Amino acid sequence: MSSKQKATNVTRVEHRINQAERERRNGHCGGVLWFTGLSGAGKSTLAIETEDRLFREGYHVYVLDGDNLRHGLNSDLGFSPEDRAENIRRVGEVAAVLAQAGFVVISAFISPYIEDRQKARQAAEREGRSRFHEVHIHADLDVCETRDPKGLYRKARAGVIPDFTGISAPYEAPTSPELIVESGSNDIETCVNTLVSYVESHFRLS
Amino acid sequence: MSSKQKATNVTRVEHRINQAERERRNGHCGGVLWFTGLSGAGKSTLAIETEDRLFREGYHVYVLDGDNLRHGLNSDLGFSPEDRAENIRRVGEVAAVLAQAGFVVISAFISPYIEDRQKARQAAEREGRSRFHEVHIHADLDVCETRDPKGLYRKARAGVIPDFTGISAPYEAPTSPELIVESGSNDIETCVNTLVSYVESHFRLS
Repeated sequence: MSSKQKATNVTRVEHRINQAERERRNGHCGGVLWFTGLSGAGKSTLAIETEDRLFREGYHVYVLDGDNLRHGLNSDLGFSPEDRAENIRRVGEVAAVLAQAGFVVISAFISPYIEDRQKARQAAEREGRSRFHEVHIHADLDVCETRDPKGLYRKARAGVIPDFTGISAPYEAPTSPELIVESGSNDIETCVNTLVSYVESHFRLS
Repeated sequence: MSSKQKATNVTRVEHRINQAERERRNGHCGGVLWFTGLSGAGKSTLAIETEDRLFREGYHVYVLDGDNLRHGLNSDLGFSPEDRAENIRRVGEVAAVLAQAGFVVISAFISPYIEDRQKARQAAEREGRSRFHEVHIHADLDVCETRDPKGLYRKARAGVIPDFTGISAPYEAPTSPELIVESGSNDIETCVNTLVSYVESHFRLS
């Protein structure tokens, strides 16, 4: 599907409450931390642990997780190349809405293609003052495959899952991400500390 | 498109921060006020005025507006019957996500079909503790057509806009909405008071 607007005779309605007001009340700005990385790199774990820490520190924070959205918004999508791209496009748009509503959004999707991530960035930046931070959750393929928490690599090697990122489908690593988290060579706590520090310095209003 | 889940090998990830914790911090529960009514009945105006009032009273509140989403998430959709249904389906899912994140969500769409609104209710109720409140923003057709703030009825009567709700396409009024707001016979302030009172009694945690 195209990202060009199909419907005409629609005009933007101005919200009375703008993003700046929401941010003043929250004490931090809204924006998207867009995690990208291989299956098994730790995206979901780090997203949930970071959400927990940030919530305790008073942030309005929300994790968008592929596994969850697949049950709702994206339940009509499968795993064809078109459906995968549309999946990520919609996630990017929902992340943008949540960021505009004032949240620190953490999205945890493999999102292997540069073009798809670029669209997510554009969606966030289209929505006024929102920030988009590409975060590469980086662990080497052999580390991820050894972990294999969901047994997906094994299935991919056996040919049961086709087009599996890193095995039978490409992963296009970010060329200039705002943050790299080395989740292959650091423990979870260290990685979460890195993420929380990053949010403290980039989202907290002074 | 179907609302049945297409993707298999996906499992739900439990969020550490659940909706109840978000609600305790906010002092109110999350949920959806689903406005439905004819074009010109005042849905967008009442949504924005109510958002303003509720925000000033400390609520986390967010308006989902068709005109806005058409520029982003639903930019690939036109006005065919299938696209309209898919438009409303996605809005219902996004509203459910925002409600789960703790917001009082006000959605302001004509949403003329009972079946589509029923799906939105199911989406909200699927997401744990979320509440769904169908709100009929009711003004008689002749009142709406006289107001015609966007000149759409005139275009519909001239045949420029096909399948226009109330003129050349049906509007299925709610049979048992949680709230009816008589926007044809009351001024804006009265209607907003009704809505704010409703939220105070149904969303505020005691």
